[in-house]
Amino acid sequence: MKNNNLRWHHNKISIKDREQLIHQKGLLIWFTGLSGSGKSTIASALEEALFHKGKLCYLLDGDNIRHGLNSDLDFSIKDRKENIRRVAEVANLMVDANLIVITSFISPLIDDRENVRKMFGKYFIEVFVDCPLNICEMRDVKGLYKKARNKEIQNFTGISSPYEKPINPEIVLNSEKNSIETLVEQILNFMSINKFI
Amino acid sequence: MKNNNLRWHHNKISIKDREQLIHQKGLLIWFTGLSGSGKSTIASALEEALFHKGKLCYLLDGDNIRHGLNSDLDFSIKDRKENIRRVAEVANLMVDANLIVITSFISPLIDDRENVRKMFGKYFIEVFVDCPLNICEMRDVKGLYKKARNKEIQNFTGISSPYEKPINPEIVLNSEKNSIETLVEQILNFMSINKFI
Repeated sequence: MKNNNLRWHHNKISIKDREQLIHQKGLLIWFTGLSGSGKSTIASALEEALFHKGKLCYLLDGDNIRHGLNSDLDFSIKDRKENIRRVAEVANLMVDANLIVITSFISPLIDDRENVRKMFGKYFIEVFVDCPLNICEMRDVKGLYKKARNKEIQNFTGISSPYEKPINPEIVLNSEKNSIETLVEQILNFMSINKFI
Repeated sequence: MKNNNLRWHHNKISIKDREQLIHQKGLLIWFTGLSGSGKSTIASALEEALFHKGKLCYLLDGDNIRHGLNSDLDFSIKDRKENIRRVAEVANLMVDANLIVITSFISPLIDDRENVRKMFGKYFIEVFVDCPLNICEMRDVKGLYKKARNKEIQNFTGISSPYEKPINPEIVLNSEKNSIETLVEQILNFMSINKFI
C-alpha cells in the first residue's frame, strides 16, 4: 500500500504559472447601462477586437447565464441581486483562470456593482454605457419598453425599476453620439494606457 | 446620431476561433469518489501534469466553490443537487471558453453525474477514484469520518448518506494500491488514446 502518497500535497498551478503560459492576466470588464443602451453590442465588438490582439476573452451575458446557471432566478430585486452575485463569482473563477471576462448586464444598483469592484480590486474596469432613456426607448430593439409602458412587464429598469448611474466608472461611453468602432477604440485606449494590454 | 450602428450585429468570437488561438479544446474531467479517496490530490497532480504539456486548465473544487458561488448552500440532499448543478453550469461556461476544467467533488449520485454527462457529450471524462470506505476512513485526513461516526456531522457520504458508484465511468483509479504518479499517467494515457491531448 502506498497510502502515504495520497497525503503528499501538490502545489497547485498558480495564477502566475498560467500567466506565463498564455501571456495574459485575468481581468473583468463590467458593462452597465439601460436596456437598449448598446452594452451587448459594444461588449461583443470589444471581445472581437481583443481576440484579434491574441487575447483569450469570454463574454458573460444574459444569453449564456440566464438560460443556464441562473435559470432558477426571476427579475425580483432579490433575484436580481443573486443574479449579479453569481455572475461576479463566476467571473472571479474565470479571471482566476487568467481569462479576460467581459460582462454585459444592466446591473442597475450601485451597491451590487461596488461589491463586484471590491472582489476584483485593480483588475476591474467598470464601463458605463451612457445613453438617454428616451433614445433607448426609441430604439426598443427587443420591444421591451413598449411592454413595460403597457405594464405587461413589471420591474423594468428605467420605467418601473431604478437605474443608479455609476459615480466614478473607469470608462463612460456615449453610445448616442459615437459609432461602435469609436467606442471600442476608447476602451482599448484605456486598457493600453493602464497596461492591461 | 449614429444609432443604426448599434443595431449592427457583430459575430461573436466562436469556440472554434478560440481553439485556433490557444490550440486546445475545452473538456471536463469529472472526479468522483468518497471523502478521503484522493480525488483532490490526484486532480491537482493532473492539473500540474497538463500544465507542463502547455494546457490551460482550471481546477474547481470545494475550496473555490463552496466559499464563493455556492456559499449559500448547505449539505442537504436538495442543496447538494444544486451544488452539483451550479458546478456543472460553471464548468460549461469554462469549457465553452476552451479551458480544460477539472472538478473534484464527491458527487455521490448517479443521476446528478449523468445530468452533467448529458451537458458535455463527448467532452466529458468521468474519473471514479475507487477506494474502499475503510481505507478512506482510516486515512481520515480531515477528521470528518470520526465526526460523522460521532454524529457531529449529518448526511456524511459513506456513513449516513449514500455513495452510488459510477456504472460506466471512462476511468477507474485504484487509489489504494497505486501511486499518484501512476494514476496521473493512467489518465494522461486515456486522454492521449482518445486524442484529447
